[in-house]
Amino acid sequence: IVCRSKFDLATVYVSDAQYNRNIFFDTSPQAVRLYLLYNHWFMQMLVYVFIIINLALALFEDPAVVPLPIWATSTIEIICLSAFTVRMVHYAKVIPRDKFWKDPKNICIIVIVTLSFIDLTIYGALKATGYFAIRWSRVLRPLLLVNVTEGRQLRRAFRSIRNALPQISYVFFLFMFSVLVFSLMALKLFGKRGLLTIDGSPYFTNYLDIVFDLYVLVTTANSPDVMMPAYNYSVFFTVFFILYIVINTYTFMSFFLAVVYNNYKKYLKEEVRQLVKARRFKMCRAFSLLQETRGEGGEPVVTQAKWNHLVKLVKPNISIAHRELLWSVLDDQNKGHIGKIAFVQLADLLSIQVITVKSQPHPIQICFPSVYNSSVSRFIRYMVRTRVFVYVYDLIILVNAVFIGLDEENPVVSNAEWGFLALYMLEIILKLYATEPRAFFARHHFWNWFDTIIIVSALFGTIINSALKHCYTSRQILDIVFILRVVRLIRLVDSIKRFRAIINTLIKIGPTILTFGQLIVVVYYIFAMVGMELFKGKVQFFEPNSTSPDQEYCGNPLLKGTTFAKLNYCKNNFNNVVSSFIVLLELTVVNQCGFTAVTHVSARIFFVLFHIVVVIIIINIFVAFILEAFLVEYTFDKSDLQTSLEKKIEELELNVQQYVPFGPPIKLFSIASFCC
Amino acid sequence: IVCRSKFDLATVYVSDAQYNRNIFFDTSPQAVRLYLLYNHWFMQMLVYVFIIINLALALFEDPAVVPLPIWATSTIEIICLSAFTVRMVHYAKVIPRDKFWKDPKNICIIVIVTLSFIDLTIYGALKATGYFAIRWSRVLRPLLLVNVTEGRQLRRAFRSIRNALPQISYVFFLFMFSVLVFSLMALKLFGKRGLLTIDGSPYFTNYLDIVFDLYVLVTTANSPDVMMPAYNYSVFFTVFFILYIVINTYTFMSFFLAVVYNNYKKYLKEEVRQLVKARRFKMCRAFSLLQETRGEGGEPVVTQAKWNHLVKLVKPNISIAHRELLWSVLDDQNKGHIGKIAFVQLADLLSIQVITVKSQPHPIQICFPSVYNSSVSRFIRYMVRTRVFVYVYDLIILVNAVFIGLDEENPVVSNAEWGFLALYMLEIILKLYATEPRAFFARHHFWNWFDTIIIVSALFGTIINSALKHCYTSRQILDIVFILRVVRLIRLVDSIKRFRAIINTLIKIGPTILTFGQLIVVVYYIFAMVGMELFKGKVQFFEPNSTSPDQEYCGNPLLKGTTFAKLNYCKNNFNNVVSSFIVLLELTVVNQCGFTAVTHVSARIFFVLFHIVVVIIIINIFVAFILEAFLVEYTFDKSDLQTSLEKKIEELELNVQQYVPFGPPIKLFSIASFCC
Repeated sequence: IVCRSKFDLATVYVSDAQYNRNIFFDTSPQAVRLYLLYNHWFMQMLVYVFIIINLALALFEDPAVVPLPIWATSTIEIICLSAFTVRMVHYAKVIPRDKFWKDPKNICIIVIVTLSFIDLTIYGALKATGYFAIRWSRVLRPLLLVNVTEGRQLRRAFRSIRNALPQISYVFFLFMFSVLVFSLMALKLFGKRGLLTIDGSPYFTNYLDIVFDLYVLVTTANSPDVMMPAYNYSVFFTVFFILYIVINTYTFMSFFLAVVYNNYKKYLKEEVRQLVKARRFKMCRAFSLLQETRGEGGEPVVTQAKWNHLVKLVKPNISIAHRELLWSVLDDQNKGHIGKIAFVQLADLLSIQVITVKSQPHPIQICFPSVYNSSVSRFIRYMVRTRVFVYVYDLIILVNAVFIGLDEENPVVSNAEWGFLALYMLEIILKLYATEPRAFFARHHFWNWFDTIIIVSALFGTIINSALKHCYTSRQILDIVFILRVVRLIRLVDSIKRFRAIINTLIKIGPTILTFGQLIVVVYYIFAMVGMELFKGKVQFFEPNSTSPDQEYCGNPLLKGTTFAKLNYCKNNFNNVVSSFIVLLELTVVNQCGFTAVTHVSARIFFVLFHIVVVIIIINIFVAFILEAFLVEYTFDKSDLQTSLEKKIEELELNVQQYVPFGPPIKLFSIASFCC
Repeated sequence: IVCRSKFDLATVYVSDAQYNRNIFFDTSPQAVRLYLLYNHWFMQMLVYVFIIINLALALFEDPAVVPLPIWATSTIEIICLSAFTVRMVHYAKVIPRDKFWKDPKNICIIVIVTLSFIDLTIYGALKATGYFAIRWSRVLRPLLLVNVTEGRQLRRAFRSIRNALPQISYVFFLFMFSVLVFSLMALKLFGKRGLLTIDGSPYFTNYLDIVFDLYVLVTTANSPDVMMPAYNYSVFFTVFFILYIVINTYTFMSFFLAVVYNNYKKYLKEEVRQLVKARRFKMCRAFSLLQETRGEGGEPVVTQAKWNHLVKLVKPNISIAHRELLWSVLDDQNKGHIGKIAFVQLADLLSIQVITVKSQPHPIQICFPSVYNSSVSRFIRYMVRTRVFVYVYDLIILVNAVFIGLDEENPVVSNAEWGFLALYMLEIILKLYATEPRAFFARHHFWNWFDTIIIVSALFGTIINSALKHCYTSRQILDIVFILRVVRLIRLVDSIKRFRAIINTLIKIGPTILTFGQLIVVVYYIFAMVGMELFKGKVQFFEPNSTSPDQEYCGNPLLKGTTFAKLNYCKNNFNNVVSSFIVLLELTVVNQCGFTAVTHVSARIFFVLFHIVVVIIIINIFVAFILEAFLVEYTFDKSDLQTSLEKKIEELELNVQQYVPFGPPIKLFSIASFCC
């Protein structure tokens, strides 16, 4: 039993090292077993399900997309909050008490859950007695995403932002100083000239208005409108705006990027160093659990038997060939045991994804060997593997693209679609004939999966569509069929080598983009909650065929005659969480803020704050990340470990195909620091 | 005479090394003297004057800002072209014939000058006979700026762009593929739904229109307008636009920056390596001219006497102290002669700017020693040097800022201005009292110069203004006075250390920004010339008080009811070179192109091309440059040479203050690769 608990503990250390978990758990056998349960994928998934349900409540709470009664949403929220509490209690059982209370993320979760309960009670009580109430704790919800144990990557992203903040703020203050000085100059130059804007309001007469207008000019949203009255008055005034744009829009915005990028790089190096150190430390702990001393005064070692048992526990579904390969890399001299230095590399070795391709005979070859080995069959298999086959299908895709562009109501075009579908199906069948099906559908063959799924779905869609056509035309099915048809064209990218390299970079940084997605969701959710409380119902959207006279000014007389109403932006409102998110996306792209017209001028603060947080900080971090990922891609170096693994594979002449999804292990961190 | 010509040649080599000139000139004494004349600052300035005159001709040629008769502009152009020809002939005399014809920039200039003469003749002849004619050779004019010998930095910038082009084009093709696929999907999804844009025209029904609209969405110019009809129809369609924006606007645009930045860095390293190599080679040539062998089989050396003579020739106005300092750095062991390795460093040493500050007594101290050394005087001088003095004046500036913001027609405010002017004058006088005037106005004391010029001009302006006030109010003088008042506030930046660091970085990259300025001028000029031929007179601007009925649609019935006319953009036209440049600037900020309404749809190609060249390539190079400059600033290391120079200064206890404007020599290249 002692032995089993030792292996359990060692397994935990190795997998913590592999996944870069940094939890100081209790090492008693009971706590270790609880810890294994805590890290079980099902438990982790469950937490995310509850978080998503909790966040999704915004869809049903007032102002709702689909209104649900308060008792229903409250019940769901209580279930979610209870789930978080249970998870927290579980965590408290796993780690020592003093560690638990020192960890800020635990305190955060407890505070959030407590405040949510309090808010829920107050809100329920106030609503029941008919008073006005605000669900202010909803702003805290996305913070759970950051503070759960699994939110490591997201926390790292936030830490990276926090570290960059002091530097950013210096540049920001200088930038604001520049905006303020320019605004003062604008006030002095244009204020007394009696110019009018296109709306007929006085131009550049109020200092704070000027500051806001010039700030918006940095986002390029009101260019060239803000310049036109001065330009129409005299061409010399454009010098003012040109200077402003060069200094603030271009130079300062580049400076922000530079500061963020610089901090990102600096922080990344530090982070990688710490991760490597922690990983090493954990592997050493695991080693000391399993070590034994060979002979008198010999170095402590781990035997192959123990090592095999450990690897089986860490990665239950590892193939024997793969395990033996790893061992032969570590135990280079076939001693039957390895020292500490070799043992520590295990975590890195496990991160290198090695795909074992069993060279099995084709099923048809087994069933009908004579047919499969006939000269015709061999010729077909040969042809499918040539470049000509690829070119022919590229040409077919191009022709298909033209046909898609044509009017599908033309019978020739709609019949041609069947032809194309047949050709694509033929391609898949031919490829399946030439390649062993299990190899064809191996996990790393992205494009094979892509093709098959798209083509088969398109086939089903087209069949369903033409079956239903005689009764009625379903726009939805037709839409899906159209999307599938167009998506098919993407395959063309895979045929061009240069494109493939770019796409591979994109796929590699995919997981990190997901972390950014979470970051964006957190920030958007907070702004959406605040925005909804501030602006809900201020702007109304009327269906296009409505006859209401309010339609012209989005149901708010204050918008009468504004560009906002004229351009029919009524649907850009904060009336529910979905449209809030869309408005916030629009604000990210270009800062258009007609909302200040319908509320107090101070609402502008909301928009400026959003711009600072999202555009200046988060988008720049995103760009910095892509820059770094790209530069690392182009200075690609294989790590020693990977080289020795490859050498081993060659030496042993194993039929093992290597596939590294994120570059070499150390590079792995530097590409995907957020994602591992 | 042989000796003199040797020194001449050595001087040329050293100064070529110092300024990174790479001209393989003829080494005959006569050619060397011609070469010295060729590189004379006056000749170089003259070339730029002629280039500017030649470019400025666009102001006077049809369509002109100030129309001049054809004979006048033609005569000026012929003078300019002749000047370039003379310069070319001079250059041909300086370098060997075969080198001359192998250099593409010489061929370029000859072709440009020849084509300009031909175009001028044809244009003159056609105009004289009353035919329609186009001055097509005007497009070539800015290329002279690139191809003159002095345009080294600009050529380097263009080379860097050319080197990045293949890489950029792969990403660009993939990006265009993505735009085309998205457009096809948009056509299929929205084309048949009968949606209408805000103008009432059908929405997303023509494939090429969709491609253009979606391309413009990448520039964020038509967001969210392009999305609104689909969004109003169904909220689910926003998914299409969100995907499009995330992929094309954010990811691809970041990719472009990454590709440009990566190439810029790669190219920079190569460029610096070559520059260092060429510099070394030239210094070795200079050494071999002046070397002599000491003793039997000794190493060749250069004596101090020869070195002194050389340095005096290279830098005629160098102080004796400075020259001796440099010698003592090179001749570390006081041998009286230096070897090749030490000699080669001369060019780098000369690049380190060393300022000799003579500690002279204050003029007042000489004239009235008793007054200057009295305890009151000493107290004043002490006070002026404390931080308190700076803080008091920072406060005064802040109060002044508030007063500037107030209405200047209020007598209290306008009288307060006199008070502030008096306070500022007092500050300068006190500082001049505390510091020796020549030291106060030393060349590197930027802020002292800044203060004095601004305050004295403001004083004169205010006096003139109040003198004239009784007769009439001159808006121009008042404007200048206002600008001077506001500019004064910038001084506040210098008091905050963090800000000063950022400003210093900005000042350091100033020269390179000038190179970008030239780059922008070249590209803008070419696009302006083409744009003027395509769009001149299509859009008319009417003075605001005009009563013409055409005013509403900018004098072009095609613009009736368009947003372009509604927003009163009439002055954004290509009717002369100044407004063309302003339109192009607006297009750089956000791509608004109402011009396609007044001409053929194919005019869109002009706008897309401009966006690709300026925004995707040049702005990204600018951002890449700022990024690199910033990163180098933050990983600041002093070169060995600079350290030894500083050590020498300390050793010798020389009263020499060191001032390095661009960082250490080697860093110098990497910061200011374009500017040196």
